[in-house]
Amino acid sequence: MSALLNDVDCFIFDCDGVIWRGECLIDGIPETLDMLRSMGKKLVFVTNNSTKSRAGYVKKFTGLGLSVKPEEIYSSSYAAAAYLEAVNFDKNKKVYVVGEVGIQEELDLKGFTHTGGPEDGDKKIQLSKGYAMPHDPEVGAVVVGFDRNINYYKLQYATLCLRENPGCLFVATNLDAVTHLTDAQEWAGGGSMVGALKGSSQREPTVVGKPADFMLQNIADQFGLERNQICMVGDRLDTDILFGKNGGLTTCLVLSGVTREETLLSPENTIHPDCYMSSLAELLKIKEKAAVTA
Amino acid sequence: MSALLNDVDCFIFDCDGVIWRGECLIDGIPETLDMLRSMGKKLVFVTNNSTKSRAGYVKKFTGLGLSVKPEEIYSSSYAAAAYLEAVNFDKNKKVYVVGEVGIQEELDLKGFTHTGGPEDGDKKIQLSKGYAMPHDPEVGAVVVGFDRNINYYKLQYATLCLRENPGCLFVATNLDAVTHLTDAQEWAGGGSMVGALKGSSQREPTVVGKPADFMLQNIADQFGLERNQICMVGDRLDTDILFGKNGGLTTCLVLSGVTREETLLSPENTIHPDCYMSSLAELLKIKEKAAVTA
Repeated sequence: MSALLNDVDCFIFDCDGVIWRGECLIDGIPETLDMLRSMGKKLVFVTNNSTKSRAGYVKKFTGLGLSVKPEEIYSSSYAAAAYLEAVNFDKNKKVYVVGEVGIQEELDLKGFTHTGGPEDGDKKIQLSKGYAMPHDPEVGAVVVGFDRNINYYKLQYATLCLRENPGCLFVATNLDAVTHLTDAQEWAGGGSMVGALKGSSQREPTVVGKPADFMLQNIADQFGLERNQICMVGDRLDTDILFGKNGGLTTCLVLSGVTREETLLSPENTIHPDCYMSSLAELLKIKEKAAVTA
Repeated sequence: MSALLNDVDCFIFDCDGVIWRGECLIDGIPETLDMLRSMGKKLVFVTNNSTKSRAGYVKKFTGLGLSVKPEEIYSSSYAAAAYLEAVNFDKNKKVYVVGEVGIQEELDLKGFTHTGGPEDGDKKIQLSKGYAMPHDPEVGAVVVGFDRNINYYKLQYATLCLRENPGCLFVATNLDAVTHLTDAQEWAGGGSMVGALKGSSQREPTVVGKPADFMLQNIADQFGLERNQICMVGDRLDTDILFGKNGGLTTCLVLSGVTREETLLSPENTIHPDCYMSSLAELLKIKEKAAVTA
């Protein structure tokens, strides 16, 4: 198990069930993260939530008593901007946003011009005989994420860009069916807004959040690491661990979330992480034991 | 060619390019329809437009100077209500509508109770900590069609019904990518609203409009006809004619719409109708010739 601490240079964390459960921090997490940082490990906290920017997401961590830098957070809003940068998207072109402020803030930080977003939330179409909605031919990419103010104006505007602007990119932050606007129920997620535009454009988007590979490649490139030097830590076999394995990462399941040890060890389970532990905080004991042994 | 008049008992017409082009009736159409009716042929005018009921659609025909009965129109709004009737949908249950007044009117005519629709067009979600949107557990079907007032409230309400109400049906009027709100451009169609709910529910809908088979079966059952006694008349090879052939109908291409004779006869074309003619009005001449010969 100490191989995990020796061989891995970067830990990618799914947050819910690993770092916190609902609104509560999991025991021993701040100390574990401090220890990993003191060992020089890179930490990346991933979230498919695109409504906040990385800077916006820092507040959630701070509110739970965790000190995290914006650069350690990999939100799908950031992933969208990083993708446009990675494909050298022409900065003279514009991005049309179906989504919230998080995407806009990340586009701003990378210097991309954008329209749409919350500003189009109250717009309605006005129909009269022969009316055509104007759209900007300079829009070269449509970025779609969760948008609680989705409306027909935005759908039509984005559809026109996707169907009529030659070469217009179609970027989806994620395809999640549901999201957690509140903890009380599941809410229709980003997959809903993306699905609407798939239906009208008859195009498949490039997905930049989990479980697409773009994020992993982007992180590996950023730190100059091989895939097996990166460990995906998550609490779900069929999403987190499968995602890590498909991406060639080292994988670690923690039992502090939704998966029980019986499920992991049952003959029906076909997804096997490289290691598993009761909670990420177990790394503290592993480190201590390694120190004693040495 | 006169076999068409002898052997076919029911003609299904795609309207645009067959009956009218844009806002103009095609020459000779009223006389042709009168002749077919005088021969005792059943006429069915199909449209994937779900925003109007059959009664509402009659006005479009009347406005062009055509006399058509509501029962001769097969709109996808009617198809949705006919489908619920065909599967004996429990009338003690409710239907949640993502769509416009056409669907509501057809559900009313069949005696189904419904909620949603235009009445939910201005609703917004109110988020507070721990908030759960209430939804009616008595909703047993969600019917989705084109909806220019689509919003997150409706998407979430329909998603809750589809994900949480056991056995809740998911009925789509059509999957059309685009529709013609105005003639000046293509507008995001019913496929957009359906796509949004596919994305959030991770379910596939039952489609009742073209090109699904339900409509053909429903028409054949209604008139007690075999499939080859029904002729699909359309102006598009890859939609109308393919739809008719897949459904086992007799097919007739008219050249009064988008398809040119060169395209039909080119070696690249793989979709061959049973017959073709310059316009539906050619049937008048065929009838005259048959009368002279006899």
